Amino acid sequence: MRRGFAPAEFKARLRAAQAGMAEIGLGALLLTTEPEIRYFTGYLTRFWESPSRPWFLILPASGDPVAVIPTIGAALMGRTWVRDIRTWAAPDPEDDGVSLLAETLREIGGPVGVPSGPESHLRMPLAEFERVKRASGLVFRDEAGIVAGLRAIKSEAEIVKIAHICDIAGRAFDRVGEIAEPGVPLSAVFRDFQRLLLEKGADWVSYIAGGAGPMGYADVISPAGETHLAAGDVLMLDTGAVWDGYFCDYDRNFAIGHATAEQSAAHARLIEATEAGEEAARAGATAFDVWQAMARITGADERSGRLGHGLGMQLTEGLSLTAKDHTVLRPGMVITLEPGVEVAPGMIMVHEENIVIRYGRAQRLSRFAPPNLPVI
Amino acid sequence: MRRGFAPAEFKARLRAAQAGMAEIGLGALLLTTEPEIRYFTGYLTRFWESPSRPWFLILPASGDPVAVIPTIGAALMGRTWVRDIRTWAAPDPEDDGVSLLAETLREIGGPVGVPSGPESHLRMPLAEFERVKRASGLVFRDEAGIVAGLRAIKSEAEIVKIAHICDIAGRAFDRVGEIAEPGVPLSAVFRDFQRLLLEKGADWVSYIAGGAGPMGYADVISPAGETHLAAGDVLMLDTGAVWDGYFCDYDRNFAIGHATAEQSAAHARLIEATEAGEEAARAGATAFDVWQAMARITGADERSGRLGHGLGMQLTEGLSLTAKDHTVLRPGMVITLEPGVEVAPGMIMVHEENIVIRYGRAQRLSRFAPPNLPVI
Repeated sequence: MRRGFAPAEFKARLRAAQAGMAEIGLGALLLTTEPEIRYFTGYLTRFWESPSRPWFLILPASGDPVAVIPTIGAALMGRTWVRDIRTWAAPDPEDDGVSLLAETLREIGGPVGVPSGPESHLRMPLAEFERVKRASGLVFRDEAGIVAGLRAIKSEAEIVKIAHICDIAGRAFDRVGEIAEPGVPLSAVFRDFQRLLLEKGADWVSYIAGGAGPMGYADVISPAGETHLAAGDVLMLDTGAVWDGYFCDYDRNFAIGHATAEQSAAHARLIEATEAGEEAARAGATAFDVWQAMARITGADERSGRLGHGLGMQLTEGLSLTAKDHTVLRPGMVITLEPGVEVAPGMIMVHEENIVIRYGRAQRLSRFAPPNLPVI
Repeated sequence: MRRGFAPAEFKARLRAAQAGMAEIGLGALLLTTEPEIRYFTGYLTRFWESPSRPWFLILPASGDPVAVIPTIGAALMGRTWVRDIRTWAAPDPEDDGVSLLAETLREIGGPVGVPSGPESHLRMPLAEFERVKRASGLVFRDEAGIVAGLRAIKSEAEIVKIAHICDIAGRAFDRVGEIAEPGVPLSAVFRDFQRLLLEKGADWVSYIAGGAGPMGYADVISPAGETHLAAGDVLMLDTGAVWDGYFCDYDRNFAIGHATAEQSAAHARLIEATEAGEEAARAGATAFDVWQAMARITGADERSGRLGHGLGMQLTEGLSLTAKDHTVLRPGMVITLEPGVEVAPGMIMVHEENIVIRYGRAQRLSRFAPPNLPVI
């Protein structure tokens, strides 16, 4: 499986961004976060885990991107298609890239667009941002969702990567029976499941969550407790594993020892809802339509939380399957279908699969689970 | 090994923050990032990997913290010591917590401090932050590093957790000989090393980097390439593994098959520099002093990048061992010592260990490597 993208793909992303910039009259687009910078450069490192240094990429109204980054990143950025790489020795308590960034922005010219909408954040200290604004003398404003809009529609090369990590996770899920049995603490199951994902080919495992109990679990975001699995529990494992910078995000439920009637019925209903969501998830339909198709079966209402979301370079990104999200589905959007049902007061079961929107029926990226709750 | 902290520890952190707030006249402190919120609550989840929802914690001038969070986090936050938990059904495209946060801030009163200094960022969309400021009608300003200052000095309970993950990583490093040999691709070594870390007890592996080559490696932040190890290479593996939310951050070098004279000499010099740094790292000395002790031996100059940094809830946090950082070392500060030497033009070797500052000599948290470069 080939890593990275052809330079032509990055150039196409850049041209599309520049078309959007021209529409709203931006002279430059300033990017500061990992997925935004990686989307236009291919710069992939886990070093973002360190908060100590800001990183900047500037897309000019025309011409190629300019990277303004700490010296420590120069070698790796030099292996991307970016040629204009300006560095400073960070961290520098006196001037941590502020002058270099302001000077570069002045050279490129404003107004400077900055992602400011849903899911965005500015990855630099607020005080430094104010200094850059003053030092550059340029106008800064919202980029109106240009980058998020581009990222929402995946290229075939991106879809192949998501499909690959979905396949890796599927082969790890196949082996959960080897690591989960009565008496095993949930923390050991989480640890061993990460090992299985790596063994099957994940580069790393950025997200794992889950839960277990006879009537489901209280939420789907908790880390593992020391509770030991017991016969009659339903175990859920949910993972956002990564291959070449792209995520899968789906889960599986397993009955430990035997399945109760409530668990089996809940699981069958979740699969029914997932398939109804898949059926509704067609180009031209809205996020709301897909939500409604699933909500009709699970009985979810507006307060139940979303039943799926976009997926790609981040564990979650883009649209939400809720009653309030009227985003129109377009071919190339990758989404999760994630219905949940309440099994007992405060206790839920959740199922999740990954698909890509196509003309006509959606294409499955994860191997969909059958209605029968597997017993391990 | 006990997870979490006693409620008394969170209360002490809160009181210390409130003392700082009183000094600069803040009515509230608004926190938005994972480590900031976890520091005061114990709220630990990998769900921060999802950018879709903002999370807020408010420390009032007196009294207990108030969490303003998405409903999906209510169950988990309810298991912390925080009692005042206000939720909204996020993501909500019409009002994603803005009204609830503004209303809560108005009730608590301003001025509102926001972390704005080095290493900080605001984890919410800029446009929403402007809305919250307007809707609350309060004054917002920099919190002057109160939170970073507190986090820099670790409690004994925090140090125990860092020592534990250092020990886990040490036992994984001991087994690198089983996963690295000539012909093995670096990507397989990275994958297998993560599996070793999990097997030895890491909860997850947030960071791994490294490199290999006959004359060292080009940088220390790159992901694994498909290059195969060859006899005569030096292999470096660097990890930020996590236990109960605390990081280790250190590396090891290994000669593959046999060590060259250059590699052995470079390694011995790195260990000499590390030990000189350890000797200098005493309460009352400065970050500069420790940098200088190591730089004298490695020949580093001001442009060489930092030779270590603070460590704890993040892979890197707090001070930098550079010529420009004059932070005074205080007992309880956990730092890395990370000297590097150039083996050939553009090719380096780097060594790293973890220590905690004490009165008198520092205490080792990682088991220090001996001068001889291990051959595997």
